Amino acid sequence: MADLDMVNRDPNNINDFIGVQFEDVLAEPEGAHSIDCVWKASFFCFNIWKNFFYKLATLCCGMCIAAEWGCEFARIAFTHIWFVTPFFKVLEINCGCLQKFWALCVHCCCDPCCEAFGLIFGAFRKD
Amino acid sequence: MADLDMVNRDPNNINDFIGVQFEDVLAEPEGAHSIDCVWKASFFCFNIWKNFFYKLATLCCGMCIAAEWGCEFARIAFTHIWFVTPFFKVLEINCGCLQKFWALCVHCCCDPCCEAFGLIFGAFRKD
Amino acid sequence: MADLDMVNRDPNNINDFIGVQFEDVLAEPEGAHSIDCVWKASFFCFNIWKNFFYKLATLCCGMCIAAEWGCEFARIAFTHIWFVTPFFKVLEINCGCLQKFWALCVHCCCDPCCEAFGLIFGAFRKD
Amino acid sequence: MADLDMVNRDPNNINDFIGVQFEDVLAEPEGAHSIDCVWKASFFCFNIWKNFFYKLATLCCGMCIAAEWGCEFARIAFTHIWFVTPFFKVLEINCGCLQKFWALCVHCCCDPCCEAFGLIFGAFRKD
Amino acid sequence: MADLDMVNRDPNNINDFIGVQFEDVLAEPEGAHSIDCVWKASFFCFNIWKNFFYKLATLCCGMCIAAEWGCEFARIAFTHIWFVTPFFKVLEINCGCLQKFWALCVHCCCDPCCEAFGLIFGAFRKD
Repeated sequence: MADLDMVNRDPNNINDFIGVQFEDVLAEPEGAHSIDCVWKASFFCFNIWKNFFYKLATLCCGMCIAAEWGCEFARIAFTHIWFVTPFFKVLEINCGCLQKFWALCVHCCCDPCCEAFGLIFGAFRKD
Repeated sequence: MADLDMVNRDPNNINDFIGVQFEDVLAEPEGAHSIDCVWKASFFCFNIWKNFFYKLATLCCGMCIAAEWGCEFARIAFTHIWFVTPFFKVLEINCGCLQKFWALCVHCCCDPCCEAFGLIFGAFRKD
Repeated sequence: MADLDMVNRDPNNINDFIGVQFEDVLAEPEGAHSIDCVWKASFFCFNIWKNFFYKLATLCCGMCIAAEWGCEFARIAFTHIWFVTPFFKVLEINCGCLQKFWALCVHCCCDPCCEAFGLIFGAFRKD
Repeated sequence: MADLDMVNRDPNNINDFIGVQFEDVLAEPEGAHSIDCVWKASFFCFNIWKNFFYKLATLCCGMCIAAEWGCEFARIAFTHIWFVTPFFKVLEINCGCLQKFWALCVHCCCDPCCEAFGLIFGAFRKD
Repeated sequence: MADLDMVNRDPNNINDFIGVQFEDVLAEPEGAHSIDCVWKASFFCFNIWKNFFYKLATLCCGMCIAAEWGCEFARIAFTHIWFVTPFFKVLEINCGCLQKFWALCVHCCCDPCCEAFGLIFGAFRKD
């Protein structure tokens, strides 16, 4: 079991679009600055409440949810690896035959026509 | 908790389109200049009233609003991180199978035809 | 509060299209010149009346209008900074999810077809 | 008040299209020349009457018209500088929001489809 | 009052298309030559009658017509310089506003759609 990076907890950037930092949400452009202490207090309020609720929610449910997803993904992995992928291999082989036969027919019928119509653009040919 | 930049309060430029400086709003072109003291007084009036009302509003509601958004974003982050993203991962795996199956069918049926029709543009091929 | 440039009163050129100088309005081409004193008198009349009325109007209403716009822009800045922008952030996050789901469906259905049809233009491929 | 150029009275060439010189109006090509004195007399008649009437008209009305245009342009400048431009600034800010919202919807709906259809032209991609 | 060029009476070439010389009108190609004296007599007849009638007509009416055109062009110059051009300046300023408003609407509505549809041709992008 690999080590767990405690600092960068999204190494594959799958949740990057969820920006919930203070500066992603609230920002005062030049010319509209509130009083310094108000801005500072807003920053602490935002962070304290956000962290409090998030940490509370994960403390209560985090482990259960993770366990549940563990079971679910075990089931999915088992199904796909042992049934779906081999079945697709069979399908692929049979489809290959069918496609070869179908290509034979189509090329037989259409190629001469298309080559003929292709003469319309003969002027673009670079010899 | 990171430091708060008190000078540049919009490091990600998300509110850049809100230009509320005096020179963004009022400007006198060449040939239409009011008396100097009037222009100066206008500048001070604009800034004093703008700052007074903005600072008053943020003083009253700023912290509450920030706290409210903190809770809201904690909820959003929790939902997306622990439910939505893993659910999408499941969906993605199943969709990958479905797409592979559907691609097999489509490529089997259409590829020969499209290759044949592609001969029409054969003159553009660079050998 | 920043300094006010009393000479160039339109640093961002937002009112450049308002050309109200004498030579922007009245001009005599070669071959149609009035008597010199008439032309000079017209120049002074134009400028005196223009400046008199403009300076009078700004003297009467300038400061009030500027104060009014100050309040208005304080209101706009407050609304946008503390409500609209964070709300858009929430919307953006949810929309990101929806788009991911919708993209999954669309790519699943359409990608194989479009790739197959793309073979028609195979001749343009640069290998 | 800037200096007035008494010789070149159209520094911005706004009335260049009004050519009222004798050679702009009357001209005899090779092979159709009137008697010299007639041509010369026509030249003087044309210029004397043109100048007489133009100078008379400007002497009578020039200053009044210039004064009138002065008032008019003072009114226009005042309206545009103090009302129209700030109002457009407000409109711009609100429109910016609306556009962001509309762009979110459109990109959410159309982007996956357009990307998928774009695969049809995949052969033109320069890798 | 400028000098009058008595030789080149069409310095701006405004009447160049009126070719009334003998060789512009009558010409005998190779193989169809009249008797020499007939050709020479025709030449003199043509020129004498043309000059006689043209010079007579200009002698009678030239100066009056020139004077009349002088008055007319004085009227035109006065109208255009003192009324039409300033009026167009007013129109231009108002049109500038209207255009800004219309551009705002159009960019707001169409920009997101066009960007999305532009993805169809993403393959032609040069990175």
